[in-house]
Amino acid sequence: MPKLKIILAYDGTDYSGWQIQPAAHGKTIQGVVTSALKKLTGEEISLVAAGRTDAGVHARGQVISFNTASRIPVERWPLALNSVLPEDIVALKAEKVHEDFHARYDARRKQYRYTIYNERFPDVFSRRYSWQIPHPLDRDAMAKATKYFIGYHDFRSFCASGSSVKNFNRYVEQSKISYRGNFIYFDITANGFLYHMVRNIVGTLVEVGRQHIKPENIAEILAAKCRQKAGPTAPPQGLCLEKVDY
Amino acid sequence: MPKLKIILAYDGTDYSGWQIQPAAHGKTIQGVVTSALKKLTGEEISLVAAGRTDAGVHARGQVISFNTASRIPVERWPLALNSVLPEDIVALKAEKVHEDFHARYDARRKQYRYTIYNERFPDVFSRRYSWQIPHPLDRDAMAKATKYFIGYHDFRSFCASGSSVKNFNRYVEQSKISYRGNFIYFDITANGFLYHMVRNIVGTLVEVGRQHIKPENIAEILAAKCRQKAGPTAPPQGLCLEKVDY
Repeated sequence: MPKLKIILAYDGTDYSGWQIQPAAHGKTIQGVVTSALKKLTGEEISLVAAGRTDAGVHARGQVISFNTASRIPVERWPLALNSVLPEDIVALKAEKVHEDFHARYDARRKQYRYTIYNERFPDVFSRRYSWQIPHPLDRDAMAKATKYFIGYHDFRSFCASGSSVKNFNRYVEQSKISYRGNFIYFDITANGFLYHMVRNIVGTLVEVGRQHIKPENIAEILAAKCRQKAGPTAPPQGLCLEKVDY
Repeated sequence: MPKLKIILAYDGTDYSGWQIQPAAHGKTIQGVVTSALKKLTGEEISLVAAGRTDAGVHARGQVISFNTASRIPVERWPLALNSVLPEDIVALKAEKVHEDFHARYDARRKQYRYTIYNERFPDVFSRRYSWQIPHPLDRDAMAKATKYFIGYHDFRSFCASGSSVKNFNRYVEQSKISYRGNFIYFDITANGFLYHMVRNIVGTLVEVGRQHIKPENIAEILAAKCRQKAGPTAPPQGLCLEKVDY
């Protein structure tokens, strides 16, 4: 059966994350996309995603893969799928892939962006897609702090406790801050991410911006391999899965 | 009783416009702000807004005025009001004004922005705040067309039929197009606007962009003073009241 790889964008605001949950926990992206695929093809399709985004987290470049016997030509897939998806999930691109392709296991690199809105009052238009911080933030200190994450590190201090992973080492290729007006963007690219890793890094960077933690302290926090040493977990709505490379 | 002038931003997506309607028509910005003021001050406050935005239309700089006997210091008003407003309406600034001040009648100039997203597939993050057009648009032709609106004109061709106004003359100070990636922004500033005027202008500009109307034809459309000569009404979600000058 042919295998497809599809790029999805979604507004995660109204979802309990990617992964199918018991119904009481609310609708999920995976659940809604699976139903849409069923409507389109009549098949019970089992979906794999590159990143299992949490409740309230968004995606501009989520990648999914699945097998289908459908005879819809590959170039028509995005339009066809969008016709059965709700408006907060959009298929952007489809391609045929090798039968061994796996959206999660084959991902070599993922890029996330976290958006902070640094103003006294919330912005009604970006409230669903950013973390509003009313306090002044020292942007230079934050930029300096981002550099400590680059490279091969044990990120245990930035992993949610209770995670079942054994290997906490990840390679961070890019970790940088940029600005536009009152918006602060944190972009991070790595070969993989631990549970809540980006949000824990951002929570810590904001502590640096508020001058509660010094940029130099990041090295010690990493070395401590202890979640309690780092800052709090930033809220989900600022986070977006931008891109996955294979 | 002292009079206050407050600047509001709101996401109009979930509202039936500014003006209070019979309950069956859904909640309105005016209704929700009036309730919030009641909660804050205990008073039945009668509100005036600079522009009575339609259902689904947004504001970054709506101005309201009202009398209140409340003893909240003026500089604390935004924070106090925000504590009783839903998260899609935000008070940004408050000041005391002369008892004769009237947010609508005293407005000398209003600025609106209309946002178009010109891409094949919708953008999940701006879908509530833009009009997605999947067809190619001739940006140069659109820019050329915007110039014809500048100056003192009879805008009857761009006024929704059934309007009760007698005077269709308005002075347009600024009418221009700018771009960022796939977004096209139309900014228009005038001494006043007729009902649906901006949305009818945008609907016409998009016809120009699709090369169904020539930029030069705008002069004839204005001269015709006939709604049927202009293009369709653009949808509300792309429109935002940016600024009101007094």
